[in-house]
Amino acid sequence: MRTIELRGKSVVLIDQTRLPRELRLVRCRSAEELAKAIECMQIRGAPALAAAAAMALAVTALRSKAGGRAQMLRELEAAAARLRRTRPTGVNLFVGLKRVLRVARSARDVREIRAAVVREAKHIADEDVEANRRMGKHGARLLKKGDIVLTHCNTGALATVDYGTALGVVRAARRQGKRIRVIATETRPFLQGARLTAWELKREGIPVIVITDSMVGHVMAQDEVDVVLVGADRIAANGDVANKIGTYSIAVLAKEHRVPFYVVAPTSTIDLSVRSGREIPIEQRNASEVEFIGRTRVVPKGVRVLNPAFDITPARLVTSIVTERGVVKPSELKSLFKR
Amino acid sequence: MRTIELRGKSVVLIDQTRLPRELRLVRCRSAEELAKAIECMQIRGAPALAAAAAMALAVTALRSKAGGRAQMLRELEAAAARLRRTRPTGVNLFVGLKRVLRVARSARDVREIRAAVVREAKHIADEDVEANRRMGKHGARLLKKGDIVLTHCNTGALATVDYGTALGVVRAARRQGKRIRVIATETRPFLQGARLTAWELKREGIPVIVITDSMVGHVMAQDEVDVVLVGADRIAANGDVANKIGTYSIAVLAKEHRVPFYVVAPTSTIDLSVRSGREIPIEQRNASEVEFIGRTRVVPKGVRVLNPAFDITPARLVTSIVTERGVVKPSELKSLFKR
Repeated sequence: MRTIELRGKSVVLIDQTRLPRELRLVRCRSAEELAKAIECMQIRGAPALAAAAAMALAVTALRSKAGGRAQMLRELEAAAARLRRTRPTGVNLFVGLKRVLRVARSARDVREIRAAVVREAKHIADEDVEANRRMGKHGARLLKKGDIVLTHCNTGALATVDYGTALGVVRAARRQGKRIRVIATETRPFLQGARLTAWELKREGIPVIVITDSMVGHVMAQDEVDVVLVGADRIAANGDVANKIGTYSIAVLAKEHRVPFYVVAPTSTIDLSVRSGREIPIEQRNASEVEFIGRTRVVPKGVRVLNPAFDITPARLVTSIVTERGVVKPSELKSLFKR
Repeated sequence: MRTIELRGKSVVLIDQTRLPRELRLVRCRSAEELAKAIECMQIRGAPALAAAAAMALAVTALRSKAGGRAQMLRELEAAAARLRRTRPTGVNLFVGLKRVLRVARSARDVREIRAAVVREAKHIADEDVEANRRMGKHGARLLKKGDIVLTHCNTGALATVDYGTALGVVRAARRQGKRIRVIATETRPFLQGARLTAWELKREGIPVIVITDSMVGHVMAQDEVDVVLVGADRIAANGDVANKIGTYSIAVLAKEHRVPFYVVAPTSTIDLSVRSGREIPIEQRNASEVEFIGRTRVVPKGVRVLNPAFDITPARLVTSIVTERGVVKPSELKSLFKR
């Protein structure tokens, strides 16, 4: 199945907090339930959250008892407002909501709204998969046979509706027979690399080695990394990239070792309304994610921790950005939208 | 109490695998028991291991039933051989063994050997504390009032017999009223930063914030780090530094942000017989340290992981090395021994 699907009047998604221990599905029957699933990261990944937000509005429309157009629009706006409060950094969630609300507003009555919202939500999901396959095709050209790709966090099928962004590029290159291997950082605190990336790649028979985040410099110094591929949660107009905490450190290390650093993300991740990375809000998550691993407390009680979920990689450290419309330098982002 | 003490015919040490949950002591009655305690990191930290190895020989001598000098020397050599197989990277353990064996060989009979070995083991422990206090004094001059120090792993009382190397410098500066604050990396996989450094500093009322290793670049980019202070497990003649995995990444990030990067270590950590970092053996530890955190499996079964315990920071990234004999550039190491 896909990471997230609209089934009947519900959204069904893979519970990513349970992996790799068990593959369990969660059913969300309302925007509120989906908002909570997003907040506790049962579903995560910027592109997946666009679909999740859109489907949350579809569920809202499908279950609404609104007597008229205005009432239903109010319900959708309220649901969207709730969803906007879940996670501030990734832009795709906001884009997904915007698209669905626009088609809703263009519809003439309750029935039309319902149909339009569902259609748009499904469309966003399908588009995501299609964009990932195109990114895979464009990005695979950047990889040579036998390359070892270092990646951070999870950018695979689980971070999207299916296929993946950076891992989609690995998949596409493998299908071309390029024998790519992957080094996955474990990605503290939430361990998306160890738990999710390793799980996905192992299921598919793609060779993967997990390292702690602290080992990146060491493996690069040993000449074990040919390329870095990461995803993005938001890209500013100047090419600065917000992505999972730790990405910036990896980018600096890649520069030091002259390893190309590619960001793989759909154009919906590019936010031209934001001039530079400084304007991107960085989500601060709950301290408990750092203080505990599973049920084990690893930081003494009463000691303060930081837990920014993202950091900003300045455009100067980004070799190229791979989108579904092609590969561009971070300084050439705007060219993607001139057509 | 100190981290490790010779009590009667046993060595008593703080079990560092239990912290911060509980402060529990372990009693070792033989070199074999101490070797195991070192291997499973109930005691760790290069300077502490010099004392641990020396005390292991003291216990061997105290409990020996050898009838003559030759027999006792053979027993000590066998114990030393076992201890040398515990951990290959840190040089202090080897230095400790060498010193104790030398005094043993100079002694004339069993009684003299016993007395000399015990005396030397105690001397090594006392010297370590004294060296740490001197490093604290020299190093504190490098810190300004209000500085935020980023440190990695644990270099405090627990990594030494008492007081600490890099954390000793923080302690000394605090006592001068300099109001130093500390950012401690959690230090995966063994979490010495989160578990041990935070515990030590909290007990002493020194302000500390714990971050994941992946956050180092981010906090430096936010201008939140004034100085990096780390310890060392072995320093080559050319100034290359072997230290806890992740140190090299931090050194590269410090260079990128023009943050001074100081290594604090006693001269016994300097190994002039090793020309450069390339000749220092890097210990590869058990995969389970990365695969599990507490009892929680975080990497799917069957996925390979790497677990090098140390990395090499080239001399060019080291601003200065703080020793008990003074502060020197990594290129001037040899000057420390010309007197």
